[in-house]
Amino acid sequence: MTDWTLHPDRALPADPVTRPIAREIYASVRDLPIVSMHGHVDVTALADDEPFPDPAQLLVVPDHYLTRMLVSQGARLPELGVGPAGTPGLETDPREIFRRFCAGWKHFRGTPTRYWMEHELVEIFGVTVRPSAETADEIYDQVAAAIADPAFRPRALLDRFRIETIATTDPAWSTLDDHARLAADLPGRVLPTFRPDPLLHPARTTWRGDLERLAAASGVATDTYHGYLTALRERRAAFVAAGGLATDHGHFSADTTPLPDDAAQALFDKALATGPDEPGISAAEEAAFSAHMLFQMAAMSAEDGLVMQLHPGVLRDHDAAVAGTFGADKGYDIPVVAEFTRGLRPVLEAFGHSETFRLIAFTIDEDVYSRELAPLAGVYPALRLGAPWWFLDAPDAMRRFREAATETAGFSNMSGFVDDTRAFCSIPARHDLARRVDAGYLARLVAEHRLELDEAVETAADLAYELPKQSYARR
Amino acid sequence: MTDWTLHPDRALPADPVTRPIAREIYASVRDLPIVSMHGHVDVTALADDEPFPDPAQLLVVPDHYLTRMLVSQGARLPELGVGPAGTPGLETDPREIFRRFCAGWKHFRGTPTRYWMEHELVEIFGVTVRPSAETADEIYDQVAAAIADPAFRPRALLDRFRIETIATTDPAWSTLDDHARLAADLPGRVLPTFRPDPLLHPARTTWRGDLERLAAASGVATDTYHGYLTALRERRAAFVAAGGLATDHGHFSADTTPLPDDAAQALFDKALATGPDEPGISAAEEAAFSAHMLFQMAAMSAEDGLVMQLHPGVLRDHDAAVAGTFGADKGYDIPVVAEFTRGLRPVLEAFGHSETFRLIAFTIDEDVYSRELAPLAGVYPALRLGAPWWFLDAPDAMRRFREAATETAGFSNMSGFVDDTRAFCSIPARHDLARRVDAGYLARLVAEHRLELDEAVETAADLAYELPKQSYARR
Amino acid sequence: MTDWTLHPDRALPADPVTRPIAREIYASVRDLPIVSMHGHVDVTALADDEPFPDPAQLLVVPDHYLTRMLVSQGARLPELGVGPAGTPGLETDPREIFRRFCAGWKHFRGTPTRYWMEHELVEIFGVTVRPSAETADEIYDQVAAAIADPAFRPRALLDRFRIETIATTDPAWSTLDDHARLAADLPGRVLPTFRPDPLLHPARTTWRGDLERLAAASGVATDTYHGYLTALRERRAAFVAAGGLATDHGHFSADTTPLPDDAAQALFDKALATGPDEPGISAAEEAAFSAHMLFQMAAMSAEDGLVMQLHPGVLRDHDAAVAGTFGADKGYDIPVVAEFTRGLRPVLEAFGHSETFRLIAFTIDEDVYSRELAPLAGVYPALRLGAPWWFLDAPDAMRRFREAATETAGFSNMSGFVDDTRAFCSIPARHDLARRVDAGYLARLVAEHRLELDEAVETAADLAYELPKQSYARR
Repeated sequence: MTDWTLHPDRALPADPVTRPIAREIYASVRDLPIVSMHGHVDVTALADDEPFPDPAQLLVVPDHYLTRMLVSQGARLPELGVGPAGTPGLETDPREIFRRFCAGWKHFRGTPTRYWMEHELVEIFGVTVRPSAETADEIYDQVAAAIADPAFRPRALLDRFRIETIATTDPAWSTLDDHARLAADLPGRVLPTFRPDPLLHPARTTWRGDLERLAAASGVATDTYHGYLTALRERRAAFVAAGGLATDHGHFSADTTPLPDDAAQALFDKALATGPDEPGISAAEEAAFSAHMLFQMAAMSAEDGLVMQLHPGVLRDHDAAVAGTFGADKGYDIPVVAEFTRGLRPVLEAFGHSETFRLIAFTIDEDVYSRELAPLAGVYPALRLGAPWWFLDAPDAMRRFREAATETAGFSNMSGFVDDTRAFCSIPARHDLARRVDAGYLARLVAEHRLELDEAVETAADLAYELPKQSYARR
Repeated sequence: MTDWTLHPDRALPADPVTRPIAREIYASVRDLPIVSMHGHVDVTALADDEPFPDPAQLLVVPDHYLTRMLVSQGARLPELGVGPAGTPGLETDPREIFRRFCAGWKHFRGTPTRYWMEHELVEIFGVTVRPSAETADEIYDQVAAAIADPAFRPRALLDRFRIETIATTDPAWSTLDDHARLAADLPGRVLPTFRPDPLLHPARTTWRGDLERLAAASGVATDTYHGYLTALRERRAAFVAAGGLATDHGHFSADTTPLPDDAAQALFDKALATGPDEPGISAAEEAAFSAHMLFQMAAMSAEDGLVMQLHPGVLRDHDAAVAGTFGADKGYDIPVVAEFTRGLRPVLEAFGHSETFRLIAFTIDEDVYSRELAPLAGVYPALRLGAPWWFLDAPDAMRRFREAATETAGFSNMSGFVDDTRAFCSIPARHDLARRVDAGYLARLVAEHRLELDEAVETAADLAYELPKQSYARR
Repeated sequence: MTDWTLHPDRALPADPVTRPIAREIYASVRDLPIVSMHGHVDVTALADDEPFPDPAQLLVVPDHYLTRMLVSQGARLPELGVGPAGTPGLETDPREIFRRFCAGWKHFRGTPTRYWMEHELVEIFGVTVRPSAETADEIYDQVAAAIADPAFRPRALLDRFRIETIATTDPAWSTLDDHARLAADLPGRVLPTFRPDPLLHPARTTWRGDLERLAAASGVATDTYHGYLTALRERRAAFVAAGGLATDHGHFSADTTPLPDDAAQALFDKALATGPDEPGISAAEEAAFSAHMLFQMAAMSAEDGLVMQLHPGVLRDHDAAVAGTFGADKGYDIPVVAEFTRGLRPVLEAFGHSETFRLIAFTIDEDVYSRELAPLAGVYPALRLGAPWWFLDAPDAMRRFREAATETAGFSNMSGFVDDTRAFCSIPARHDLARRVDAGYLARLVAEHRLELDEAVETAADLAYELPKQSYARR
């Protein structure tokens, strides 16, 4: 076993013709600031700027990429510190949790978690030994010592990570108080993103309660369809006022078919009329309503200029019992087939050529890149193809994305890199990896004489920095 | 910025072991004649042999690959000279159109349009500067001077491009007059292809008018289902007599399920019975009828030996308003999921082992290569797997096709290269690029000791020249 | 044409940086014993240990990968010796069959059949000339001479091939007599696999007869739903007693939705009540029943610990006339779209975290790797992702599998290599090729500094040897 270091050429193509070109391209973008326009970092942590609690809470417990892999190899979620207080077997010793992670290091081979974590441990925390059952305590101590240092508080890390701008994801009813505090201290640096999903799904048992939260936040009664739309519009305005640039929509389907107004109103009324314990409308009715509401969200974006992000095609909470015990976002969200050509048609016909509208579409169904999203993004000016997301935010998957989408969509119709993470310390690792993979792809084009080097260098900067800024500029 | 030239090794693999092998394989096929068995070149232009009007009309306006990319970046179609006379804002100055194209050169990075256009400008027109806002006029002048030269007239270019045979795509009711003129002057060199699509879709508002054109062309009354079939059969015979080798079918679905005769007749009668302004049959009825007619076309092919080409899976005219204003084929045709295993079953069960039948199936849904088309082509002798088409006629997509399809279908069950273009000057660029990509793929097989060099050289010639000739030989 | 030998570096990556690393990784696993946990080798041949009949029966006739390719190029199945006695044109001269195969050698370029056969001919039979019409007799004679030698009898080849364990696939009603003979002579080396497919599909005309065979084998009356379940359970116990480790399920769909007991019973009764000549239940009812029975099989696996293998997504007997004349498994089974996320949900919710259950899921719809199977295998401890199977057991397809699945599932959630062959002599070739491809993939990770060499060497051994043993260990 060699000493544990990061190789300067990691994730660059191996062949001796392409690598030097990739190295040159990567060097030109390595130190660009980070523009992180889509993610799930905890805004309160940034606002409060308290030290991170411990290595397990920082690196293991909240990262469902990581915990799901350990679960697949036999760990129970509570053993990893995951679960509400009182869960039987809930591990409360962070060191024990960290040991379980280190002991399972082998299982991460070939995964991006392995790649990111290696970057984090070595680059941020100065770790020099490979994780294992034997080295767990040593690494734990080293990370714990680091995060006790004020230089490792969240806001200091914003600087250290060279994060120029970072967007969080916030419920539609968020008070945006944390954002107000951050705007005062760090103007324009931490931005909210408007996420109304639960409000657009009236069959969820939480819907009525969320409607009330919307009413409270907006000061608009939400007991009529008209009021509901007005309240949503009002909250969007509040996000705009707080510096928000975008909305975010995680629907099961990409369907955007609008309903006639009276039909939408009738579904809203029907959903509201039923008792609180059962859904008032059927699954098919909810699907129609939420498709309709995506169209409404697009219409509002064309008015207020918030960039609309859509990422469909995930069956959430695949194991109902796990979701019941441990809640959402525990690694049990599984992709399904996605369809965009027909789904996005209503929105694109209505707003696809509008200069005040932008839609960024993400997928984790790779088939859709060359078949649907690249052809659509390659003609509609309002549409940009989002970066490979979630399971596809990985070296080989990113390379496949470039190879499948670029020939039809070009680079200019893409969002540039987004990290979509809730693991704060992984942000620089993720951006660095994407820059490396893009440098490798561009270097191949240069080595195959399909692109000149100066073009590749400019394109690398576009993908890493210019395109995310430009794609998320409010219209 | 280096001088603008074409690198001799462009589009060959970069790695130093594979490239010399690829170079050797490519050299062996570089100068083979072009056999262009499927495309959309304007037959009248070839028949008349007039000079091309201007650089914009030659290279920009009719190429929807190119205009769609500029549209995606904010251009309006009329600004690019696209639209019927009288369209507001329709640019009529070809120099201005050409400037817009050159100014948007950056957006084509990584696309085949960029690759082909570079080949065309450098190789055909001798351009030595990279397109940009600054160089647009210089390039325009150079191309304009060239096309004023008789050596750049269409028929002279046929020779210059070493085009041995070229097939056009012609409506079923075509008089074939232009083809008659060409057959007299250039026997066997420019061939018609029978394309009956509009006649097989009775829900289109144009259907009744097209039926009348069919009646006029065939001299057979088309007001009965029987007459309709007879007229189609007669026109196929006329295409055969004019040297035609193939039919071409662009249906939404690959379904080929035949109907009982009386059911087909009833649908035909129902469609015909309704007034001219609305479709006489439903979308589902039309889908059943056009599937039935694909089966009939296959049956007729088994009789008259015309090779049947099928390319399903495209949602035409995605933006209805664009289609209404600018017409079809303006870059708004978007792929959808394709299905072949069940769709082709009726035709393959009926004719899949017939020695007088050949079906070439194309897809732009890549998933289908390894899952459906390669397994089908790998067993049914009548079926050949068409070359990667449209958005997939691009270097990385062609490589993926080889990698996904060859292991199951082998090379002998493929069509060889087809260019499917309406951009005449791109034909040599497209064939050259395909030969390079295939040389690269074959070189990898040689470098990995999965194929001998002599076999690779023979296979390269098969793919570039022998297989297209053989696949499109009338049965 | 060079002398016909196997290059030591075949199927390793060509680039000069990666190849030496691949060579080192491959060398570390090249000589590991073969663990062949899923396949279709003829158990009677192993039990009887008679010499193989002739080169055509050994290498050509039973291999539908091979015969389908020759059929696609115009051969008729009877010309290749395929068909029941009395089939018109049935070739009975093995030499003539072998000539046809050798004459068609060109058509196998780029296919795994070519690769495997080259390995077999050179490595096992010492052939030194490339197959062709001219060399057919020479090769035939050489192979014929070899198989006359006792050292080439089936059991001797088990040793020669270093096969530590091999599983066969056996009908649920198998007496397991051959296995008993083998267990006595070669304890633990040849294991049965329980395959109940025909019993779980009540619309098949063979179903009633198969139920009787089940009753006879189990000694349990199968004329009630309860008896049917009991008989299946009893047969599973017999397979466990005979050393069986796994079950095997080839359903059209991956649906595992259970029915209420009375609904399942009613379908069973309805199917049984109808006359013998027509199916008693509809296709939709059969689909519901067979999904229900997959759930029951999973439940029984959670009880008896037999590892459950599932490979859905194949439309069997695509050409009904071919199936009618020549029977099943003649190369006309064609893949269709597969769906796992929703299909497996009932079984995974019920048993996905059970320590006594293991499910190995195979697909030939590649799309499913990154979209569904890797995300599922990456979280449910009971699920393993099966090796690329059938058409995907090929060098480029295996590489795509690694690239598409590893980043999400890791290596530890995979089955390791399975060969799934009925061509006995191809087993070492298939395992060797998989080891080479995996070595190449791992070498790239090392060359890109995404994995250390010692990790790659350990992982290669896991994939080739440890994971198959571990994945198929009865729970």
